[in-house]
Amino acid sequence: MKVGFIGLGHMGEPMARNLLEAGHEVTVFNRTRRKAEALAEAGARIAERPADACRGDALITMLTGDEALEAVGWGEGNILGALPKGGLHIGMSTISVALSDRLADAHGERGQLYLAAPVLGRPEAAAAAKLFILAAGPADGMSRAEPLFKALGQQVFTWGDKPSAANLVKLSANFLIAAMIECLGEAMALVRKGGIDPRRYVEMLTTTLFAAPVYKTYGAIIADEKFTPAGFNMAMGFKDVRLALAAAEASRVPMPAASVVRDHFIAGLAQGQGELDWAALSRIIASNAGL
Amino acid sequence: MKVGFIGLGHMGEPMARNLLEAGHEVTVFNRTRRKAEALAEAGARIAERPADACRGDALITMLTGDEALEAVGWGEGNILGALPKGGLHIGMSTISVALSDRLADAHGERGQLYLAAPVLGRPEAAAAAKLFILAAGPADGMSRAEPLFKALGQQVFTWGDKPSAANLVKLSANFLIAAMIECLGEAMALVRKGGIDPRRYVEMLTTTLFAAPVYKTYGAIIADEKFTPAGFNMAMGFKDVRLALAAAEASRVPMPAASVVRDHFIAGLAQGQGELDWAALSRIIASNAGL
Amino acid sequence: MKVGFIGLGHMGEPMARNLLEAGHEVTVFNRTRRKAEALAEAGARIAERPADACRGDALITMLTGDEALEAVGWGEGNILGALPKGGLHIGMSTISVALSDRLADAHGERGQLYLAAPVLGRPEAAAAAKLFILAAGPADGMSRAEPLFKALGQQVFTWGDKPSAANLVKLSANFLIAAMIECLGEAMALVRKGGIDPRRYVEMLTTTLFAAPVYKTYGAIIADEKFTPAGFNMAMGFKDVRLALAAAEASRVPMPAASVVRDHFIAGLAQGQGELDWAALSRIIASNAGL
Amino acid sequence: MKVGFIGLGHMGEPMARNLLEAGHEVTVFNRTRRKAEALAEAGARIAERPADACRGDALITMLTGDEALEAVGWGEGNILGALPKGGLHIGMSTISVALSDRLADAHGERGQLYLAAPVLGRPEAAAAAKLFILAAGPADGMSRAEPLFKALGQQVFTWGDKPSAANLVKLSANFLIAAMIECLGEAMALVRKGGIDPRRYVEMLTTTLFAAPVYKTYGAIIADEKFTPAGFNMAMGFKDVRLALAAAEASRVPMPAASVVRDHFIAGLAQGQGELDWAALSRIIASNAGL
Repeated sequence: MKVGFIGLGHMGEPMARNLLEAGHEVTVFNRTRRKAEALAEAGARIAERPADACRGDALITMLTGDEALEAVGWGEGNILGALPKGGLHIGMSTISVALSDRLADAHGERGQLYLAAPVLGRPEAAAAAKLFILAAGPADGMSRAEPLFKALGQQVFTWGDKPSAANLVKLSANFLIAAMIECLGEAMALVRKGGIDPRRYVEMLTTTLFAAPVYKTYGAIIADEKFTPAGFNMAMGFKDVRLALAAAEASRVPMPAASVVRDHFIAGLAQGQGELDWAALSRIIASNAGL
Repeated sequence: MKVGFIGLGHMGEPMARNLLEAGHEVTVFNRTRRKAEALAEAGARIAERPADACRGDALITMLTGDEALEAVGWGEGNILGALPKGGLHIGMSTISVALSDRLADAHGERGQLYLAAPVLGRPEAAAAAKLFILAAGPADGMSRAEPLFKALGQQVFTWGDKPSAANLVKLSANFLIAAMIECLGEAMALVRKGGIDPRRYVEMLTTTLFAAPVYKTYGAIIADEKFTPAGFNMAMGFKDVRLALAAAEASRVPMPAASVVRDHFIAGLAQGQGELDWAALSRIIASNAGL
Repeated sequence: MKVGFIGLGHMGEPMARNLLEAGHEVTVFNRTRRKAEALAEAGARIAERPADACRGDALITMLTGDEALEAVGWGEGNILGALPKGGLHIGMSTISVALSDRLADAHGERGQLYLAAPVLGRPEAAAAAKLFILAAGPADGMSRAEPLFKALGQQVFTWGDKPSAANLVKLSANFLIAAMIECLGEAMALVRKGGIDPRRYVEMLTTTLFAAPVYKTYGAIIADEKFTPAGFNMAMGFKDVRLALAAAEASRVPMPAASVVRDHFIAGLAQGQGELDWAALSRIIASNAGL
Repeated sequence: MKVGFIGLGHMGEPMARNLLEAGHEVTVFNRTRRKAEALAEAGARIAERPADACRGDALITMLTGDEALEAVGWGEGNILGALPKGGLHIGMSTISVALSDRLADAHGERGQLYLAAPVLGRPEAAAAAKLFILAAGPADGMSRAEPLFKALGQQVFTWGDKPSAANLVKLSANFLIAAMIECLGEAMALVRKGGIDPRRYVEMLTTTLFAAPVYKTYGAIIADEKFTPAGFNMAMGFKDVRLALAAAEASRVPMPAASVVRDHFIAGLAQGQGELDWAALSRIIASNAGL
């Protein structure tokens, strides 16, 4: 397929590369051109404006958040104006439910198709084409997107024809990870004060009740207090929990544990820890406990 | 070995049976004698008072909580008075850190050995001898207890020579389960309001990020809102989260997510839901969201 | 003075009337014209568009919130375009810190003066010209506004030359009222469960430690559970606590008690109680306690 | 009247002195005798054991908490054994609802009368006989206590014939003060980050909405960050909020704002601030905000 790809960050770059390797013709756009040039060596064409990436069978956006996607959607050389009638936009960024709803409306008014398809997985999973894809939107678009999803991930979970449902699921999943970090951080502050070795504690938990990858990954980071380099940092974690809370507010769902997590993220940012791995939530907790 | 066993509830009964099957000579005591009689058919001797279970190589207690263990420890026909010097008490109940410390002192003063060895696992795991045993106490006692642990569980995690450390770890683990229920309940209230099918949501979570047994078990209960029969009920869950918070208070660890869980348990009890499965925390959350 | 006045709601109407009574020439604009006509009988001129209220010595806006003020500020016939260079805009609405900052910038770019001057006080205080005015902005504008403030309130508290500081103070004050309702609600749920008469309890509190008008007003509403008619409703209270939290987020201040209040407002809205007096926060609390 | 008085701390000492000045015959007991001797100079008799203070028309206890009162109630030379049938015990300490209930039972079994009569007011109010007395218990005892109350306070609020109701009201009042400190602390962290002068802010609040003595007192302490000497310290504040939460737990009342306060007290204690004035809750808040 001929596909446009906008956003060559930690996630987008390996994803675009996988599309190329799967034999698709990829036209890439990135705000800082240098990253696009690296992909050109692997066979990608370079678009000079977002609009120039809109001429294939589909356009994928993989940006850092609402602001970046709004710029591409409504700014100079924007995709809403450039996509042809019947054109397909697959939005894979983690964005707000509200923006996803606005995009669905805007594309709909122009006779364009819009899928939301955010992903679960870190850059390594992106590179290995092992992402989990959470997709929602019109069935028509979904079947057209299938070959692309195949090149990018290991499994697609679909959530009906309202695109923002996929964004909601994605945000709720990131909330669950942050909440898991919070709770693990509290439990580990408690046992550390009781003289328990935190590594041994994590080992016990992850070989018994909580034998899930996220517990292993974050348990180890918390036990070792190794918050750099950040896989996903406090500022990003805060952004996603805020978006989950914004969606919850709009649909009237009190989420007090999410409020606790939010307050701890704010404390972390207030104390200059925005660049640390979001597992550093546990550092706020430990420091409140005098550790 | 000759072993006394006090407390034949949902957990204690299958545990005592496993000891018999492993060839140990077991003398059982239970407040309501009928349960002891059932085990007598399987070869157990019946003790008329706690003290009468104290004459073997070790005594195991598996009771419902602090109050029951205090009665056995200091009440009529008590074990502290009956255990010989050098006698070994293995306390496997889920009790407070404070009571475990008091028991350690009391046994120590009498020249007796005391291990705390609470377990992770539900009655089915107890029956299958698949419990995880969290044990702490004097090394001497630990090696004497080994053959018994072998008959009861699949793995022993040790936590040093201060018995209450094992209780602390156990309470922290139960807090983590309750907190997981809370967080999952919040996430699921959020996505349900967005029209997402909760079963499908749980399936996605537990095949991706959260592929741990507890997420599967409780995710299913929450999705189906099937809170009876209770595997572990709200009143019990509340008790354990209280004990975790009491330990945290004593060692000065603020645990705000635990406070959220505590408040939701209290709301559940206030509304007469003490007998529901503790996954009914999610019902409180859903009802606050108008679901 | 010649003054424009936009927004003739529960607060704006009596305020505009007081300006007329103090001898000022007032040109009023209101989205629904009928309210403007009532004031015309008292001597006001009617503006057909916001822009038509911009020709005097000053313009006062007293609208329901960000959205309404944005419409007047940047919408059809807007005030930013119509105010002359050197013109003075006194924004008395309760709005976000962020919008106040945007207005300050926009007016500044056009060489116009902007004061933020939100008020403390309910409609009766507005009618009696007993408002407390929280004002911030350029000293120049402040002295020009003085005669108008005199006609509207009993006292002016100034907060420096950055207008949004006044909005921040106003939002913090509304947070304090909401938080007071929350805490009083919790205390009263507790004593009611202990068989204490809530009216008597409020009487005791307000003749001893908490002899402040807000405690009397809201204590009585909570004791009598008389949540209609609403002086200030749940939806409005929620809006202001959200704005306080948004300001706190932007300046990195964790406010966990505010988060509790926010969650209870959301629960109230989820349960269809948006039109009740915001003292109905106490109803959420009571209902969680099974009362 | 002939009255025994046990507990000559910051509150008890001036109270006993007021009784003497009002012409009552007072027999005092204090654990450290030196304080009793000081009162002997003012005319008091000294009791060598609690029991020796039980022979008059009434016995007043004014101790630091549950533990101290339990020692006097059930310990060596205890008052339960020494009070004659029909004897009157007026418990003015701030203690738990549970202990008050136990005392009521214990006195009842012995045919003795028991009133709970905790007070609102700091040592200066005690010295000036300006305390507010919260009293509950049998009407008979209440009328006998009247002359004593008259000598100690400015007003008596009665709460029925169940003594612990008065303790509940007292604990709820202390919770309300702590919660007020929390909320004020959050609001002041917010406005300080916005460049607002905290003293001016407190002045505004306490001349408008919150013109109550507690707001003035604690607002000034928070603005000046002057947490020593402590009028009432963090450790004491924590104790009382814990007792309020224990009563709330027992009667099934979720109090999430109280949980926030509790967590902040624990953080303060963890960081070695137990001796600071309880207004130092605001320091925890400020430090979480990076102030």
